[in-house]
Amino acid sequence: MKRLLIIILACVSLKSIAQGTGEKLNVMPYPMNLRQTEGKFRIAGKFTIAVKATAGDSLLYRVVNRAYQALNRETGLVFPQQYILPNDTISQYAVKVTVLNKAKMFIGADESYKLLIEPSHIKLDANNTIGALRGLQTMIQLCMRDREGYYFPCVSISDAPRFQWRGLMIDVARHFVSADGIKRNIDAMAAVKMNVLHWHLSDDEGFRVESKLFPMLQEKGSNGDFYTQTQLKEIVAYAADRGIIIIPEFDMPGHSQSWFAGYPELASQPGPYRPGPRPQWQNEHPDPNRPHTGGMADMVVNLEASTFDATNEKVYKFLDNFLGEMTTVFPSPYVHIGADENNGLAWKLNPAIVKWMVAHNMQSTEELQRYFVNRVHKILTKHHRETIGWEELFNENIPKDVIVQKWIPATMGGIIKSHGSPADFAAHGNKSLISEGFYLDTFMPAVYHYNNPEFENVDLTGVLGGEAAQWTELADNANIDARIWPRAGAIAERLWSPASVKDVDDMYRRLSTLNLQLDLQGLLQISNYERALRRLAGTEDIAQVKTLTDVLSPVRGYQKMIAGFSKGPAAAYQTTPFTSVSDILFVDSDTKRKFRESVKAFLKNHDKKAEGEIRNYLAAWQINDSQLQQLFLGNKRLADVKDQSKNLSLAAAIGLQALDRLAENTAADKDWAGKQFNALESYSRPRAETQIAVLPEITVLVSATLGTSSEVSFGGY
Amino acid sequence: MKRLLIIILACVSLKSIAQGTGEKLNVMPYPMNLRQTEGKFRIAGKFTIAVKATAGDSLLYRVVNRAYQALNRETGLVFPQQYILPNDTISQYAVKVTVLNKAKMFIGADESYKLLIEPSHIKLDANNTIGALRGLQTMIQLCMRDREGYYFPCVSISDAPRFQWRGLMIDVARHFVSADGIKRNIDAMAAVKMNVLHWHLSDDEGFRVESKLFPMLQEKGSNGDFYTQTQLKEIVAYAADRGIIIIPEFDMPGHSQSWFAGYPELASQPGPYRPGPRPQWQNEHPDPNRPHTGGMADMVVNLEASTFDATNEKVYKFLDNFLGEMTTVFPSPYVHIGADENNGLAWKLNPAIVKWMVAHNMQSTEELQRYFVNRVHKILTKHHRETIGWEELFNENIPKDVIVQKWIPATMGGIIKSHGSPADFAAHGNKSLISEGFYLDTFMPAVYHYNNPEFENVDLTGVLGGEAAQWTELADNANIDARIWPRAGAIAERLWSPASVKDVDDMYRRLSTLNLQLDLQGLLQISNYERALRRLAGTEDIAQVKTLTDVLSPVRGYQKMIAGFSKGPAAAYQTTPFTSVSDILFVDSDTKRKFRESVKAFLKNHDKKAEGEIRNYLAAWQINDSQLQQLFLGNKRLADVKDQSKNLSLAAAIGLQALDRLAENTAADKDWAGKQFNALESYSRPRAETQIAVLPEITVLVSATLGTSSEVSFGGY
Repeated sequence: MKRLLIIILACVSLKSIAQGTGEKLNVMPYPMNLRQTEGKFRIAGKFTIAVKATAGDSLLYRVVNRAYQALNRETGLVFPQQYILPNDTISQYAVKVTVLNKAKMFIGADESYKLLIEPSHIKLDANNTIGALRGLQTMIQLCMRDREGYYFPCVSISDAPRFQWRGLMIDVARHFVSADGIKRNIDAMAAVKMNVLHWHLSDDEGFRVESKLFPMLQEKGSNGDFYTQTQLKEIVAYAADRGIIIIPEFDMPGHSQSWFAGYPELASQPGPYRPGPRPQWQNEHPDPNRPHTGGMADMVVNLEASTFDATNEKVYKFLDNFLGEMTTVFPSPYVHIGADENNGLAWKLNPAIVKWMVAHNMQSTEELQRYFVNRVHKILTKHHRETIGWEELFNENIPKDVIVQKWIPATMGGIIKSHGSPADFAAHGNKSLISEGFYLDTFMPAVYHYNNPEFENVDLTGVLGGEAAQWTELADNANIDARIWPRAGAIAERLWSPASVKDVDDMYRRLSTLNLQLDLQGLLQISNYERALRRLAGTEDIAQVKTLTDVLSPVRGYQKMIAGFSKGPAAAYQTTPFTSVSDILFVDSDTKRKFRESVKAFLKNHDKKAEGEIRNYLAAWQINDSQLQQLFLGNKRLADVKDQSKNLSLAAAIGLQALDRLAENTAADKDWAGKQFNALESYSRPRAETQIAVLPEITVLVSATLGTSSEVSFGGY
Repeated sequence: MKRLLIIILACVSLKSIAQGTGEKLNVMPYPMNLRQTEGKFRIAGKFTIAVKATAGDSLLYRVVNRAYQALNRETGLVFPQQYILPNDTISQYAVKVTVLNKAKMFIGADESYKLLIEPSHIKLDANNTIGALRGLQTMIQLCMRDREGYYFPCVSISDAPRFQWRGLMIDVARHFVSADGIKRNIDAMAAVKMNVLHWHLSDDEGFRVESKLFPMLQEKGSNGDFYTQTQLKEIVAYAADRGIIIIPEFDMPGHSQSWFAGYPELASQPGPYRPGPRPQWQNEHPDPNRPHTGGMADMVVNLEASTFDATNEKVYKFLDNFLGEMTTVFPSPYVHIGADENNGLAWKLNPAIVKWMVAHNMQSTEELQRYFVNRVHKILTKHHRETIGWEELFNENIPKDVIVQKWIPATMGGIIKSHGSPADFAAHGNKSLISEGFYLDTFMPAVYHYNNPEFENVDLTGVLGGEAAQWTELADNANIDARIWPRAGAIAERLWSPASVKDVDDMYRRLSTLNLQLDLQGLLQISNYERALRRLAGTEDIAQVKTLTDVLSPVRGYQKMIAGFSKGPAAAYQTTPFTSVSDILFVDSDTKRKFRESVKAFLKNHDKKAEGEIRNYLAAWQINDSQLQQLFLGNKRLADVKDQSKNLSLAAAIGLQALDRLAENTAADKDWAGKQFNALESYSRPRAETQIAVLPEITVLVSATLGTSSEVSFGGY
């Protein structure tokens, strides 16, 4: 089982988080203090909301109305208030929202709230608008249904975030994400109380913002996919309405090929340029000294391309004007300037730049990068903006008001290497954000991000919070919802909830509910998955295909990206449709979670109900392969996982045998078990960039036949 | 069975349309001339396209690229051309597209094309860009898969439309449809070769367009949901790229309450006004002389409200400026001015207007309406726009260049009555469009629109074509895709294909494929249906709910709307979420279609395979009710169709008995059959605005036990 255990993740023992009456609640992130009490508040057709707030708090009314309509939609009970208005005078209310001060979202705002649900009424109290906004999300999530109808379980909640900065970074350069796609993500962020959308708006592959001063940026720097300023302003307002600030990132001095398509005079090397993956990735300018080897090496080697000429005064003039223009679009007090992955080669290869460096007594391109960062920092300061950058901008001379974003593991070496820990940054006086361990594009299960060691037993001085990060080499409009959600919910909880909240099983249970909640409010992760299955199957009837794909996961880490490179011209990643099986799978299999739950329950006390559930799963997987054969014919994409289908069937057969042995109390047989372990390990090998997710649980069933312990370790998720 | 037969629709006997090799093709609308030939063109990874066109035909390249990427996505074979460029020189091509002239879409454009698919290559020839665009849609639709992979069946097609005007009207006033929603509809229109989007942009309930000259129109006339001019221009360009022109409708002099919210001085009655359903619908200004009776009467009585003051010169000055501004946004040569449903009461009740009429020697408000229409027609003429209006604007003095849109059946009387037939309009020199029989919001099955009698054996002189119409009292962003698609495909075929194409069963077969094709290109009718089922079920597992809802249809005609009125304040229709079962159902049940197919096959020769299929369906329906009981608990919306679930189960039991009698050759038993007919009829009564769709087929099974004939009539769809 070595391969399955490449990533060893300890499973914290299950304990029920819900205290008091014991009903499991669905709220995510879990509140700081929550006490369950007896009883239920029943939601009926006469459900009404009264608001007590300061005059002119229109944001609050919009937020309350959205929550009200969301419950209206969820319960279908048709509530009496069409809209909740400031002049509503309701004496008999179901919910009373009291807000002391009118406020907008800013980093450091008081986001606390108190929510009291009693059988007769609900009270939400907050010091300001943003706290009420967070509390309303909790209230919506708590809505449940039993045999008698919809209700809220009675609770007393006092809640506030652990970190003031809880972000999501979305890259829209590699693949564009539509304005509606961004809005969907904002909706989901709001549901889990995230408060910063870090928008990676430019990179080699595309410049995604309309500039009126420099229109060639979007006209030549994109394939036509960019946001107009009108759209940007609309999205900024949309986010603000949900308690989220938007921070634009314009990556420089590297990762900037798309700028140079329209303005080649800003670059360190002569043009012409066009947006797209860096030259060697495209195989357009093959360099015989750097053969395409297909692998991580290619990524590293190509860091040289497309860098601003840091010695050119025109560059700073241009950036001054451009960034000044952007402050009229993005009101947030922060601008992210990237500053990552510049190895200085583009500078070293330009004699004029080298000469300038000598004249200015600079020993290395690192010094020139520092010079560039300091110049841009000055420009931003002039425009009343604070500077954020990836950790490569950190050095002992960096201004102390620069926020450093941590992303590189200490174990990395070579060109991409760690520039310090948050404690190091803090020692120098710089605040920081943590994205290390939060890269969603690495196809790691939610628990990996949830148990991020960067937040365990380390010095968090100066840490403002963190950001989930979704790069889009392997994501576009059609699969980005599932690439980010529901997993980002686990990161949101890590950043909001107390460190003591760390029951992994319960997190997965709530994440599964969150997945459905997000779906019902319009996210597309489930819809797009099922549409992709209809495409694969060529029919609306996807039951069989889904039985297989529900227990497949994409291969973990950057293996999928590397596999893409090795297949041929890597540049194709921008036009290759993401319709293969590995492109559309959820990273965490919810079926695996439910199967594991059954296996755990069964092993605890040979529970008959659990055994029945396990047999149902295994029998379905065993028979499914034969039912899929017809669909594999002439269907290359689906046939890519033909072996997985067969192996799932064989693994299920092993699981059924193990179950029989356990049921019949067959004597332990190490030879038999050893053979099964070997077989299961062979099925665990990735195929077509997918892995079978339920092998650890089947392995546990086999282990159990050896009778070693009822507390068998499951290994990772 | 009377109730089931309220709408009697003849079923044309099944004949295979495909000639030659007999393989059934999926193209919709069906081409004018299609000959199937031997063989298949195999789509492989080396699939390439060469284009021969006049210089600068950038529209053509965008269209070709979209078709290419669509096939890339569908087959997942990763084609070699990233983009097809004007300077591509490909000697070994799979497809050659030859276009003689560069053209944009206009009404009357040559939309013809020839498509030749042979085993070795494909040739698409068109006189102009628009023809090529239509031909590429045919090519994409023809893509199929067999055991060996994807292919195009060999065909020789020569195609051109029957009518030059093939439109879809969408009302975005009653409920707003997002810009993305409009784009999705444009994509779908393009797939079925429709060429006019008639956009109903203003009505009592909302003014949905940004005016820079008169910003109070959108600011006070909408709830914040409107299109900015930037968005409008983008959508106009998006449509043009798909061979579709956009015609805006600004409804006047009635249906104009939303205009008056910002500009009450234009109205015939003093304000204040606000957008929303007409006053009595809102119960805001209850008129004791007109009690709320709940029914069609309410609709008719309220036609008086909110009418432009046709005697006020300021109105014409305002409209001149406003319509002039709109010509900068909408380049199409047509503007639709509505002019429908004005009973003149708002004029009669204003003494100043009555006085003006007397002074101008006008005997009736009809004359004042004519005066108004003529004035607006003059304004539009000045702005180089042709006038279109609903048929109420037709009269013996109407200018001959006004296009009249037919919508009222000759059988209607009272305030809303027919103003003539297309032949009448033509006799006066006016061209016309037919929407009568094409109202999608009447919840009628596709066959009703397909067999529209307005196109059968009538004088079509002067008829430019027709338009499907979707009003949105009962549709919003969340269900509009399913309200329009796939049914509008049947209307598109009626307007494109020769009159001789009228095989209903084959239409339904192709419509079902179209439904999946539209889903795969991003339409949301399937996704949103399944999401709504997840909401109803409260879980991702919707199998049982779907077994029921797949064979329910919304009640036909305006019964659903009337039922809404009778439930209480009808105004709620703008905020009531469309999440009830009847809101989310497809109008045509595809399961019914398949079930009917099986029943037909079985009755023909007691086919064993068909019998097995029928038994599977019936057994699943019979047992489903008991499986659903758990879900009904505490779930009001779902419990609304509890009776339907039980009746479906009972009906299925009857079907199984009938099948047993047929299998055992039991002697005909009229008493038994009569009892079953009565039972089935009782199940056919609408409940919760839904009907069970498969009762006619079960009834046929019972009829068959009487041995009267193997050619049993099924009644309507």
